[in-house]
Amino acid sequence: MNDSISVSELGERPLISRLSGIFSSVHNPDVTLGAGPDDCAVIDISENEYMVITTDMLHRKTDFPLCMTPWQIGWMSAAVNFSDVASMGARPIGFLSAMGFSKDTDLSFIDEISRGMNDCAKFCGTSVIGGDIDTHDELTITGTALGKVNKSELLTRRGAKPGDIICVTGFAGSAGAALHALENDIDIPDSLLNTLLEPIPRVNESQELARTGALTSMMDTSDGLAMSLHDLADLNNVGFKIDEKSLPIQQEIVDFVSSESSVLADFALYTGGDFELLCTVSPDMLEAAQSACYLNVIGEVVDREVGTTLRCRNGENLTINRKGYLQLGN
Amino acid sequence: MNDSISVSELGERPLISRLSGIFSSVHNPDVTLGAGPDDCAVIDISENEYMVITTDMLHRKTDFPLCMTPWQIGWMSAAVNFSDVASMGARPIGFLSAMGFSKDTDLSFIDEISRGMNDCAKFCGTSVIGGDIDTHDELTITGTALGKVNKSELLTRRGAKPGDIICVTGFAGSAGAALHALENDIDIPDSLLNTLLEPIPRVNESQELARTGALTSMMDTSDGLAMSLHDLADLNNVGFKIDEKSLPIQQEIVDFVSSESSVLADFALYTGGDFELLCTVSPDMLEAAQSACYLNVIGEVVDREVGTTLRCRNGENLTINRKGYLQLGN
Repeated sequence: MNDSISVSELGERPLISRLSGIFSSVHNPDVTLGAGPDDCAVIDISENEYMVITTDMLHRKTDFPLCMTPWQIGWMSAAVNFSDVASMGARPIGFLSAMGFSKDTDLSFIDEISRGMNDCAKFCGTSVIGGDIDTHDELTITGTALGKVNKSELLTRRGAKPGDIICVTGFAGSAGAALHALENDIDIPDSLLNTLLEPIPRVNESQELARTGALTSMMDTSDGLAMSLHDLADLNNVGFKIDEKSLPIQQEIVDFVSSESSVLADFALYTGGDFELLCTVSPDMLEAAQSACYLNVIGEVVDREVGTTLRCRNGENLTINRKGYLQLGN
Repeated sequence: MNDSISVSELGERPLISRLSGIFSSVHNPDVTLGAGPDDCAVIDISENEYMVITTDMLHRKTDFPLCMTPWQIGWMSAAVNFSDVASMGARPIGFLSAMGFSKDTDLSFIDEISRGMNDCAKFCGTSVIGGDIDTHDELTITGTALGKVNKSELLTRRGAKPGDIICVTGFAGSAGAALHALENDIDIPDSLLNTLLEPIPRVNESQELARTGALTSMMDTSDGLAMSLHDLADLNNVGFKIDEKSLPIQQEIVDFVSSESSVLADFALYTGGDFELLCTVSPDMLEAAQSACYLNVIGEVVDREVGTTLRCRNGENLTINRKGYLQLGN
């Protein structure tokens, strides 16, 4: 590979693979899963439990819509990390926050960010256990979240196989629709706006689901449904058949996005920020999974060569493209 | 407290205390020590072991001297965190890195940063196990380091008592002198420059020291010797008598800093970036501690009311001020 190219020319996913290659050169006996495609690294801590850990950097310009309150900024910084912990079936046990802000930042602004983090950690059954403060022109927050999980209940992105059912814990496209409303000055209910500004990490659902033993793989939908499906497809060497009529689209967004089903499907597939859990379930254990928490069945896992497609209302099969929310290129 | 003041008016240490107050409002049964004055949070993971975790945010402008190579930037980002793990007597078990850089950053630059992190993690007996990449105007790196420690060997900043001996693992003021040389275009040997640009986290010394059971408290000297002494003094309600003639000043810096002992003492006390370990030792176990690793005795722990003072070569006792390297105000 030619080294004189920029990181955006390479793109986010290939860059992650490249760095994982550098980082995997050292054997680490403490680590069960590391520096790879999963949402968290997994550390062996005792006979029965793993610890999972994840870190996520957020910035004022790119990650926090202008209308966000400081409390929401704090909540969001914690929520994105706890969502990754949830993706592994783990119980959150702590959050660390490294914050960079300019020297003239008002103290009450930092207090409110901290309260938002604290409230999100509390909602997730845990607390903020450490951090760092630093000076910086642009507000920057790097969160790190930790969880514990019984070894038998750990879920990763690997394990989906043809015949499994694919499900999602809530709606798809709601946060994207809320962002669309914000960007176009469309007035929407607070409840919908909050799917974007105060996302709920599915930490309880995650643990309930993991306990059933019914799931074969899991990840969150923060980069959008299509991107998540493609990540699972690549890792497991499978494809997905998704039913357009089963896409869990929140009724309220129809009013201001479009009543056209193809437009709604695009929002559900190709916008990010929802932080729901996407999981594959053994077909004979679907009932057990559905008894654990509210779960929308959206399709099935198929052979790789079938590809990842959307079975439209008109009977047509459309390819679901690999696109969604990415920081760097595509 | 009036909320309309800025964070720099409040200062770094009071801000940390204030945020710790917000974060300590939630009880967390998984956490033994959290969100407080120590270098790491401490998590209970099994019958015999604790996990320690720390996070640190670094920026291009404030934390990486201009002459730093990308490899050194990566090394430094990992080293500052591993030094915090070392401060607790723990064995490093992993590192996570969240990096923000502009889209036009050259790929080879990111590769080199990653190799520097990887090499530092390898030096510390572990590896890079996860991370995040993000776009950002200014290069920003938040590292998170993890360690494990036997419960009986955990060291914290608390425990120093009058009569204990205070020691440091290496020199004081070397990194500060190197920075002074850089800022004044003074040519110095690479070995000295590298105390600033490629600091060695004392991870091996730390574990050897912890095993002796001779230490009563420990922290690193990254914010400077004076600041570290005051942190220990405040937490333990003690003072320190430091011998000027025992200050471990590297001979090479005399050549370009000054031959005047008071100037050299100022460098040793009031400049940061050394990443040595500062520890208090039970007087009857000093020999055991000194057999574990190279250790400079610099003075003794005294009663609080005696204060923290420097016994000068001329017999005078000078107050050691609370100053050093801080991000925000004083």
